[in-house]
Amino acid sequence: MKAIEYEHASAAVRAVFDDIKTTRGVDDVNNFWKYLANEPRMLAHVWATLKDVMGDGALDPLTKELIYVAVSVTNNCPYCMASHGAAARAKGATDEKLNEVYAVVGLANMTNRLANAYDVPVDDAFRRDER
Amino acid sequence: MKAIEYEHASAAVRAVFDDIKTTRGVDDVNNFWKYLANEPRMLAHVWATLKDVMGDGALDPLTKELIYVAVSVTNNCPYCMASHGAAARAKGATDEKLNEVYAVVGLANMTNRLANAYDVPVDDAFRRDER
Amino acid sequence: MKAIEYEHASAAVRAVFDDIKTTRGVDDVNNFWKYLANEPRMLAHVWATLKDVMGDGALDPLTKELIYVAVSVTNNCPYCMASHGAAARAKGATDEKLNEVYAVVGLANMTNRLANAYDVPVDDAFRRDER
Amino acid sequence: MKAIEYEHASAAVRAVFDDIKTTRGVDDVNNFWKYLANEPRMLAHVWATLKDVMGDGALDPLTKELIYVAVSVTNNCPYCMASHGAAARAKGATDEKLNEVYAVVGLANMTNRLANAYDVPVDDAFRRDER
Amino acid sequence: MKAIEYEHASAAVRAVFDDIKTTRGVDDVNNFWKYLANEPRMLAHVWATLKDVMGDGALDPLTKELIYVAVSVTNNCPYCMASHGAAARAKGATDEKLNEVYAVVGLANMTNRLANAYDVPVDDAFRRDER
Amino acid sequence: MKAIEYEHASAAVRAVFDDIKTTRGVDDVNNFWKYLANEPRMLAHVWATLKDVMGDGALDPLTKELIYVAVSVTNNCPYCMASHGAAARAKGATDEKLNEVYAVVGLANMTNRLANAYDVPVDDAFRRDER
Repeated sequence: MKAIEYEHASAAVRAVFDDIKTTRGVDDVNNFWKYLANEPRMLAHVWATLKDVMGDGALDPLTKELIYVAVSVTNNCPYCMASHGAAARAKGATDEKLNEVYAVVGLANMTNRLANAYDVPVDDAFRRDER
Repeated sequence: MKAIEYEHASAAVRAVFDDIKTTRGVDDVNNFWKYLANEPRMLAHVWATLKDVMGDGALDPLTKELIYVAVSVTNNCPYCMASHGAAARAKGATDEKLNEVYAVVGLANMTNRLANAYDVPVDDAFRRDER
Repeated sequence: MKAIEYEHASAAVRAVFDDIKTTRGVDDVNNFWKYLANEPRMLAHVWATLKDVMGDGALDPLTKELIYVAVSVTNNCPYCMASHGAAARAKGATDEKLNEVYAVVGLANMTNRLANAYDVPVDDAFRRDER
Repeated sequence: MKAIEYEHASAAVRAVFDDIKTTRGVDDVNNFWKYLANEPRMLAHVWATLKDVMGDGALDPLTKELIYVAVSVTNNCPYCMASHGAAARAKGATDEKLNEVYAVVGLANMTNRLANAYDVPVDDAFRRDER
Repeated sequence: MKAIEYEHASAAVRAVFDDIKTTRGVDDVNNFWKYLANEPRMLAHVWATLKDVMGDGALDPLTKELIYVAVSVTNNCPYCMASHGAAARAKGATDEKLNEVYAVVGLANMTNRLANAYDVPVDDAFRRDER
Repeated sequence: MKAIEYEHASAAVRAVFDDIKTTRGVDDVNNFWKYLANEPRMLAHVWATLKDVMGDGALDPLTKELIYVAVSVTNNCPYCMASHGAAARAKGATDEKLNEVYAVVGLANMTNRLANAYDVPVDDAFRRDER
């Protein structure tokens, strides 16, 4: 699959590209969107979801970018680490904050396996909180 | 492996249990620590790391708990989702915030695979930001 | 580890290479088999399993290649995406079909995490179907 | 988080529930949607994407359900295996077909790791096909 | 899918069951094989591979069981942790050894993510060793 | 993030680097430690854990390196495969042993998914051994 540039894109794809550019105030969309344009339905759905979820809400945008980075590190997606790392920096993430994200991600990946290995039963106190 | 209760624990394990109880102001430690006590070296290292990383720092403690939850959901660790979900609530996470965490986690897991499937090359702009 | 070429291969490895070439009607085997030849037992077992499972059966060969691609995308195996993507195309996968595979893979990875995050109980209707 | 039943749902959630029921010709929505209703934005986006992608297209609906099952097995999502396994059966998947899906999933998970372990370089032939 | 018991099994399945029972000196096969018997081709291939790889070789059988446990913990497969944990104990794994396996698994899962997060370039010394 | 070399490192980082060099009898630390030095707390904790767990214990150091390699292959961490592959060779791992590790890793990744796909119930015999 190849990147689809604006000049070769269908009207439906151009409409999404235009909305990304307007929303973000940029001249061109990132490679992710140009490749995803090979599947115009997913292009529209992923952008609609991302625009809706990653903006203002119960959590501030920076916190959500850091969570995005954390998931991308856990799944080992190099493109996603690069793009959402850049987005996090643009929203105020310092080196100190990103280093701390990586520390938490490393720690959680370790304890996730230890909890599974020992098959630790959920404490009653957590059940009360959760259910 | 079985949970190791305080009264049957070695002095080294008791020292960690005591520090957890004092630091958190609780009467007993959670099941995770009682099972991890089967490997006293890891008990000490995991607690020392968690105490150091999850407290105050460049990120506030709630943000770090939410990242912990996000990684645990991605890895499907039921105990970790329950325990860190409860910890996040104790630090101020509302249902709205947790719902938004889950939304970002779902979205990131989707785009991680799409970026890998299309083998999207990293944009120059991200390289400049990242390197 | 290095690729093992036919001329340096043992008789056991050559026998597998010969069968791959005959079955597929090709002049040489792919790199995967040349590297796997470092472990002749696995070379034989993996080829025997793949030859048996990926041919005709309850599902047509193209459907099985698309499933193979979907798993490889989820696990982020670049070699496997390239080789089974090429195999899928050779068996009739168009760009439209592959784009749809990627869409389903992205969607499933999202809903997998949402279902785990909300710890959704299995509906009775599914239990009746399944058990 | 708890399931949100129709009678306690907001108008936005009810609109999605109604569309699911009409589209599928069912009396009630599955648990997945009732839990996802805790985050109404994701409920709407996930349903819109799933309705668009899983219906008719370049691939038939059964093939897409089988791919969904394959991803859910790889990620170990018990709810998703149950719900999409049932959906696959409703669309014509026999035991023979599901057994073959599982065989391909197992095989692909094995070869994914072998390809990564040996760090197999992508064959030129695949590059020509892919790029 | 249901477990297939010996008395209802085909001749091909019985032949595999008999070989498992003879090889292991047991009266009945474990549930894994009874379920896998739904797909007789995979039953035969998985058993043939496992019998060949997990016996004597360059590594002793206990070391291989511990590696099996480590992979199963990393992937969070509860059945596999239980069955290969039991197999490891039968081959001499003490609590101390299993605790150490879990410690290494936890540690490796942490450093895997840290290495990926920092995108650490491979040292020249490792390249010399590896290539 | 960039590698932090000894001459630009803080006293705390230098102390860890010195301990790594002394413990391992090397002139310089690997890239992993230079990058992890961006987060001095994790540098100290990861090194302390690794030094404690990977040395002598209930398992010999080579077995533990092989387990480390197995986890790194399963998670697809290229740096970790290279560095712990080299460490395993330095501790006596031959090509034959590493090939067998890869074989077990591939096999376990296959059976992990098959056990999950068939939702195999844990045998009573394993419960008795385990609990």
